Formats: sequence, C-alpha cells, structure tokens
Amino acid sequence: MKQGDDEAAIRALEDRFAAAVNAGDVNAIIENYIQDKSLVVFDLVPRKEYHGADTYREDWVDFYTHYKGLPKFSIINLNVTVEGNLAFSYSFAHITGTDAQGHAVDRTVRVTVGYRKINGNWLKVLEHISMPVDLKTGKAEFNTKP
Amino acid sequence: MKQGDDEAAIRALEDRFAAAVNAGDVNAIIENYIQDKSLVVFDLVPRKEYHGADTYREDWVDFYTHYKGLPKFSIINLNVTVEGNLAFSYSFAHITGTDAQGHAVDRTVRVTVGYRKINGNWLKVLEHISMPVDLKTGKAEFNTKP
Repeated sequence: MKQGDDEAAIRALEDRFAAAVNAGDVNAIIENYIQDKSLVVFDLVPRKEYHGADTYREDWVDFYTHYKGLPKFSIINLNVTVEGNLAFSYSFAHITGTDAQGHAVDRTVRVTVGYRKINGNWLKVLEHISMPVDLKTGKAEFNTKP
Repeated sequence: MKQGDDEAAIRALEDRFAAAVNAGDVNAIIENYIQDKSLVVFDLVPRKEYHGADTYREDWVDFYTHYKGLPKFSIINLNVTVEGNLAFSYSFAHITGTDAQGHAVDRTVRVTVGYRKINGNWLKVLEHISMPVDLKTGKAEFNTKP
C-alpha cells in the first residue's frame, strides 16, 4: 500500500501542477519544485539548462507572455516509477491556445521528471521537456501525437 | 558506503555506454538498457518515443548510418541521484564527427536517464535526449555549451 500511496501522491502533485498551469498561477506552479538551487530543468526552449527554482520561475513568467489569454495544458499518459524517497516519470504534455501574434498553438511535448520525497512531501527536482528534431532540416517536430 | 557504491556502479555503466558508442558496438550499447518492452526512450530525433530495447536498438543502427566513420562521443557533467534500487541522472553529451554528406558535426545534447537496479545490476529504463528549440523559428539550438 505504501508504494501505491506514493504514486498517488505524485499523481496528485502533477494534477496540482497542471491546474496551476491552466490557471496561469506561477507561484502555484513553482510550489511543486524543490525550493533551492539544486533544481535542474532542461526546458523546451533555450537557455539549455535552468538551475534553481528562482531562475525557473522567470521561465514560467516568460511562458505566459507568448500567449493571448491562458493556454490550455493537459498531461497525457503519465507513467510513474517510485521506490522509497525517489521517483521518476514520463508523460506527454499537450498545449493549445493562441500565441501573441494571433496564431493557433497546438503542441505536444515529451516530459520526464525526477522527484524526491523530502520531509514527507514529493517535489520535482529534475525536469526535461522537449520536442524531437529532424537533423536534416534542423526543425523541431511540433506535434508528435502520443 | 552503500550509496557511494551504487553511484560508482552507475558511473561505470555510463563509462561502458560511452565506450560502446565510440566503438560503434550496438550490442554493447544496448546491454546497458533493460532488455524488455518496458524501456522508454525519448530520443533526439523522431519517432517521438521508443518502446522496448529491440526498437531502440534499430535507432542506434540508424544513428551510425548518418556518419562517415565513427563519431566521437563524450559525457559531460554527469550528476547522479541514487537511493535504494532507483536512480536518475542528468548530463550533456558532446558528439563530433563527419556526417554522411561530409559536413562537420559538433553537437551538444541534454540527457536525463532513469535507472533501476535489477538482480544487483543497474540498467537504464528511461532515457530522454534533446536540444532546446527556438519556438519563433522552429529551429533547434545545435550547440548549447554546458
């Protein structure tokens, strides 16, 4: 039962995260990450690595400047592996909306996350978000359906 | 000491992996992954997800067709988090060589890996490799130095 409880706690964390993204609530988004310099994120966009919750917070503030209104965000096919105080997951994230130039956005990205349980609470400590790239053209594949 | 031993074992796995990539030895590459359908890889290139060691093996066979001779491969800034039978890491991989069209390749990619210790052996069970993408141009950033 313990392992099932931990997986449920991580799924609840991802549900809170998705709800925060849909609400445009950057503080509620960042609460799901470890609150110190040890956080490492490889995000979809450059820069190529973010160190620390404060730095990644700026990335989320920037994220919303690229949309008219709030984008819609959902997590697809979340798979969690957990044991003890460590866990990792993979999933896809689907983002739709209208960009700042008025163009429709419909994007599916690949997400892997590393988690640690600290004082009884699961937090994201390592996140990696990407689209695959066609090396011949140098272009990213913007909608790889799961 | 136990945790240090496990981190050393994972670093040794990554050393064997890098040596196998440099040797062009696909069998020795694939030995480092879980040998069943549960393996999940989000690779640099489409398709957007690989399920199973057999499928990912084909991706490595294809990898070498894009180079004249063997590319040089090195792992940079490997950081490992391990507890019990679970671990994850992040690093950068630097690839140089000459592509099939005769052009120089010099590429730095971001790598995160999930590992499980099964019957005393650490294996890669989840791998994610990417370059960041400029969403304005749709182009990947081919050399993001760490």
